[in-house]
Amino acid sequence: MSYEPVRVASIGLGRWANIMANAIERSEKLKIVACYSRSVGKREAFAAKHNCEIEDNLESLLKRDDIEGVIVTTPNDQHAPVIEAAAAAGKHVYVDKPIAVSLDHARRIEKAVRDAGVVFTVGHSARRLAGVRKIKELMDSGRIGEVSMIETNFSNERGMELQPGNWRGDRLMAPGGPLTQLAVHHVDSLQYLLGPVVRVFSFMKSMYTPVDQDTATMTICEFASGKLAYIGANWASPGVFFMNVYATKATLFYDLDFGWWSKADVVDDHSKLILREFTSKGDDPDNRFLHDVPVTLERGDMFREQFEDFADSIRGLKAAPEIDAAQAIHNIAVVLAAVESSKTGKAVEIEDILKS
Amino acid sequence: MSYEPVRVASIGLGRWANIMANAIERSEKLKIVACYSRSVGKREAFAAKHNCEIEDNLESLLKRDDIEGVIVTTPNDQHAPVIEAAAAAGKHVYVDKPIAVSLDHARRIEKAVRDAGVVFTVGHSARRLAGVRKIKELMDSGRIGEVSMIETNFSNERGMELQPGNWRGDRLMAPGGPLTQLAVHHVDSLQYLLGPVVRVFSFMKSMYTPVDQDTATMTICEFASGKLAYIGANWASPGVFFMNVYATKATLFYDLDFGWWSKADVVDDHSKLILREFTSKGDDPDNRFLHDVPVTLERGDMFREQFEDFADSIRGLKAAPEIDAAQAIHNIAVVLAAVESSKTGKAVEIEDILKS
Repeated sequence: MSYEPVRVASIGLGRWANIMANAIERSEKLKIVACYSRSVGKREAFAAKHNCEIEDNLESLLKRDDIEGVIVTTPNDQHAPVIEAAAAAGKHVYVDKPIAVSLDHARRIEKAVRDAGVVFTVGHSARRLAGVRKIKELMDSGRIGEVSMIETNFSNERGMELQPGNWRGDRLMAPGGPLTQLAVHHVDSLQYLLGPVVRVFSFMKSMYTPVDQDTATMTICEFASGKLAYIGANWASPGVFFMNVYATKATLFYDLDFGWWSKADVVDDHSKLILREFTSKGDDPDNRFLHDVPVTLERGDMFREQFEDFADSIRGLKAAPEIDAAQAIHNIAVVLAAVESSKTGKAVEIEDILKS
Repeated sequence: MSYEPVRVASIGLGRWANIMANAIERSEKLKIVACYSRSVGKREAFAAKHNCEIEDNLESLLKRDDIEGVIVTTPNDQHAPVIEAAAAAGKHVYVDKPIAVSLDHARRIEKAVRDAGVVFTVGHSARRLAGVRKIKELMDSGRIGEVSMIETNFSNERGMELQPGNWRGDRLMAPGGPLTQLAVHHVDSLQYLLGPVVRVFSFMKSMYTPVDQDTATMTICEFASGKLAYIGANWASPGVFFMNVYATKATLFYDLDFGWWSKADVVDDHSKLILREFTSKGDDPDNRFLHDVPVTLERGDMFREQFEDFADSIRGLKAAPEIDAAQAIHNIAVVLAAVESSKTGKAVEIEDILKS
């Protein structure tokens, strides 16, 4: 299934744009042909590194007929205006997660890409990790029995380094801090595994950071299926990424070495999935023993794969990318509900957030 | 520091009474001299196994001058009447956790032992695990930096085996199910590590059990210090016991093999504590790596140690046992607040529970 590479342009050229570009360069299905950032220095550095052309402004970039899609990694609150312009120009759009940090912006994006009829997807890449895909397989096959609850955490040290003026330190641009910026990956993976969240409660605190931003968050979720999940996220400790799945026949422990997170071509090699089950399960509870079974994970590349899914959809090999606007909106609604509950001390219904 | 063994009697002779008796037999500081249960079969089996005398009723047992203390492992709602009678007879009291399942009962117990001036303690043994003691040491020494949050889980499969009529399946006798019966250990350990909890929220669900009882619970806590903790507890999966500590310099992962829980003399050998910290931490976040350091745990015996603490207090070698009525009441208040919040959908203040 080979085709002419999809010609894309990168918009917003911070650290993450480079990591995304590295992933695109690992694929034969896309090619970066141009880039744009407000910062002259950043666009020159990006163009030199990724061997592409520079555009001096967004308008000129979007006017180019040879550009089929855009890779948007601007700050969260810039997603909507950039995507509206790109969609109006007929460009397909990949945007980094979260889709936006307000429902108003998220809906503007959804409408713009639908009206334009362009292919659209959001970078909720974590569900593509070998461990998460294997967990889904073990759940679907019945191997572990029935799931009651899942626990997750995605944390790192970055809150301690935030400086006044950094958009990640701003409560409006990154509500919930590490929940929006890191653990929204788990929000997506959890809904991928358990279906829609219906109700959320969260405690959020500002700790060990020079800025006024929540840097330690604990969120619990109830699903339409009745199951439960926990999402821990902080910006005040060395990196952690895990998922524990509790089921009637076995428990799964998935742990990924965060030091390799941005190296998606090898990160699966730096993760492990353990299945814990009964060795013996007689009537006497004091004579039941457990053992751990390591589960083999085949190395994938979550970043390359999401771009290939995007490209395949553009070339018509599939109807649409796996993650669409509706799913991305449900993901950010969970985050916004968590933030709301942390202010009111009350559980918040996702339906109420979506109605607002 | 040797002394004449403290002569104790066991009251309530279910499975747990035998595990406690095994622990007492590993110590030279106590000796079981008598036992009582309503069930004739149970008292005969216990007496034969632990080589002690049988009393046919509680009154005759409490009248014996040669009995100095009692080991109470009756169902939760029987703690108060049994302890009131024992304290009135001048007996020192060890009671299994939780102290009671209502504040009214808990306060009756507190008053009875205070008025009688007897030594009193509650079986919150988990804080004595080698891993929990080591976590406290690593927090106090500054080795891991400042803690932001702690995650815990204590679960097992027992909800799937509950039968109608079993007191553990009763919402009044075991409110919160696995939270009261298992994870109350974490409630105690968390308050030991982080100080008093002030506010709690919980989701609780009945899953995979034939009785009308919550078997999957997720609780989040805010502490007076501002720190956060999560407590997961279910009765719908193979046994799990863990504690994750997030701090500014390192993260700790403590995992204990639940299959060995009741074998307290060796359980520490079946647990591991990992310290995760930076190998390199330069300015470039994509060039920071982590490594895991196994932390050596010296084998203790949480059950034997709690009884020796009780005996040492009775013999006057120390002023009082480590876990007193006030601490045990604060532990059960957290559980009751969690149950209340799961019904109302609102965070519950521990102060409001204690006032009620």
